[in-house]
Amino acid sequence: MKKIINNPDNVVEEMLNGMTASQPQYLKRLKGFDVIVRANKKTDKVALVSGGGSGHEPAHAGYVGRGMLDAAVAGPVFTSPTPDQIYEAVKEVNTGKGVLLIIKNYSGDVMNFEMAAEMAAADGIEVEKVVTNDDVAVENSTWTIGRRGIAGTVLVHKIAGAKAETGAALADVKKAAEKVIANVRSMGMALSPCTVPAAGKPSFTLPDNQMEIGIGIHGEPGTHREAIRSADEIAQQLVDKILAENIYNSGDEVAVIINGLGATPLMELYILSHKVQAILKEKGLKMVKTYVGNYMTSLEMAGCSVTLLKLDDELKELLLAPADTPALVQF
Amino acid sequence: MKKIINNPDNVVEEMLNGMTASQPQYLKRLKGFDVIVRANKKTDKVALVSGGGSGHEPAHAGYVGRGMLDAAVAGPVFTSPTPDQIYEAVKEVNTGKGVLLIIKNYSGDVMNFEMAAEMAAADGIEVEKVVTNDDVAVENSTWTIGRRGIAGTVLVHKIAGAKAETGAALADVKKAAEKVIANVRSMGMALSPCTVPAAGKPSFTLPDNQMEIGIGIHGEPGTHREAIRSADEIAQQLVDKILAENIYNSGDEVAVIINGLGATPLMELYILSHKVQAILKEKGLKMVKTYVGNYMTSLEMAGCSVTLLKLDDELKELLLAPADTPALVQF
Repeated sequence: MKKIINNPDNVVEEMLNGMTASQPQYLKRLKGFDVIVRANKKTDKVALVSGGGSGHEPAHAGYVGRGMLDAAVAGPVFTSPTPDQIYEAVKEVNTGKGVLLIIKNYSGDVMNFEMAAEMAAADGIEVEKVVTNDDVAVENSTWTIGRRGIAGTVLVHKIAGAKAETGAALADVKKAAEKVIANVRSMGMALSPCTVPAAGKPSFTLPDNQMEIGIGIHGEPGTHREAIRSADEIAQQLVDKILAENIYNSGDEVAVIINGLGATPLMELYILSHKVQAILKEKGLKMVKTYVGNYMTSLEMAGCSVTLLKLDDELKELLLAPADTPALVQF
Repeated sequence: MKKIINNPDNVVEEMLNGMTASQPQYLKRLKGFDVIVRANKKTDKVALVSGGGSGHEPAHAGYVGRGMLDAAVAGPVFTSPTPDQIYEAVKEVNTGKGVLLIIKNYSGDVMNFEMAAEMAAADGIEVEKVVTNDDVAVENSTWTIGRRGIAGTVLVHKIAGAKAETGAALADVKKAAEKVIANVRSMGMALSPCTVPAAGKPSFTLPDNQMEIGIGIHGEPGTHREAIRSADEIAQQLVDKILAENIYNSGDEVAVIINGLGATPLMELYILSHKVQAILKEKGLKMVKTYVGNYMTSLEMAGCSVTLLKLDDELKELLLAPADTPALVQF
């Protein structure tokens, strides 16, 4: 295992402290908990809490900031955070306007976030939740009943976050999040596995000439393995599966994420994006904004996912509203 | 070779077209050339041109945009662009206020950018150049006389770009760039090599238990190889080498880049940053801004570099001035 770490059992602790030490203008840690909250004073608005297992950085703590999340709860690598951690995050960010939990659809996350919601509700905090399930690869998986939540989740953070920033009520913020979930789909593939530090060896093996289509962000199985194809063929496969959902029609405005899983160079993502853009244009879609980079990763896995979100006027305005978070700090 | 590509000989062409197709609001390609320029109309100011071999994305085309570069010239992977390409870029972005070339110190780049400058000067275009050499690892290397230019180059783009945006004259923009170069130092290491697509196999091998200290961004040799150490020890090694330059003193304000070389997860960069911040704080330095992510890469190399820039009031103001480029597109 070749990693820049100290102790495999301490990676989340050190990462969280590294985040707050590096970006104190954005982030602070909730003392005694694996919870990252905004550095600046909480504002009088609906608060957004997300999180999940670590290893998907910049998700989710990288998206804590103005216009996105108020708190991110970090579990161990690829393992859901416990209810008490989530509960502390909810209590910390609540301003009395209510809290929206944004949960990726994995059984552990759903169970633990729900338990935390009940604990908070017992305190009189108004809590709502949405569950993201944008991954069209498989209908059920090792770790889920129903589809998995992957990179499309970040668009829920962005749009629900922008809605909350307008001062909207909890029910309306939730409605915006649900509208994103109804209109966002993703599909991924991998060229190589990743290694959970505490395990010390790759979670699966993939022959030198093979790729896995539909793989999950924890390395859980996708739809199938096959010989590596060209970037253009990979783009076609991923986009075809998304378009088969029949929710994207000629003339629709869309946002696109060409997401790297951690070890894939930008060069490859742009080569993939070249073909993705061509296919979508051919389909008559209008690309309002395309994000190319590492937004929802799987440690050092090589691979990518494509995400498509259909926009209406409200979603478009919220997508393009200003946000300021430490993920991908810009010059 | 596991890569998301079509034809190994066509990666730069498809990448550049993928960039403009994905981010047309930021970028356009100069027809017939491997040159990326700003999509919006050129403004009446000193123009900045950089570039070099491809494979270091988002450098340099990702930094084309308001407040940074006006054009980036892309050579083949790890190979300098030819003088005619650079010359076209200079002609395209010149508005009569002059053009500053920002060159990373590699023999091919220096020679070709200088030749382009002469061609442009013969046309009556006022051209100045600066050469970045922030890498403290080696005094001379396979590809350079003198120190190599690496991630610190991006801070030259940022600060000279901000200066140009103020309407400053060419001599003053050059002076700001030179001030950055005088005050910026970097040091890197790698855990794994990368594969140039046209070569099809890694450019070197590194045993499973070893790392290379001081490695260059093309995989050229560093200072030595040794058994992999902990993140804290790696941080200490890299920072010690930078601090040995004796230009950073207690009380100084600094900017920091914790740069991933392509395949290193953010988790590891933050763990490294945690220790880097602690060492710099102990030294009495004041961190104004820390960038953690992939800013100057080496395809899918696993590894990192640390960059330190000493700021004065002018540099600080220019560093923090707004910029808007496609690198690391933010939500």
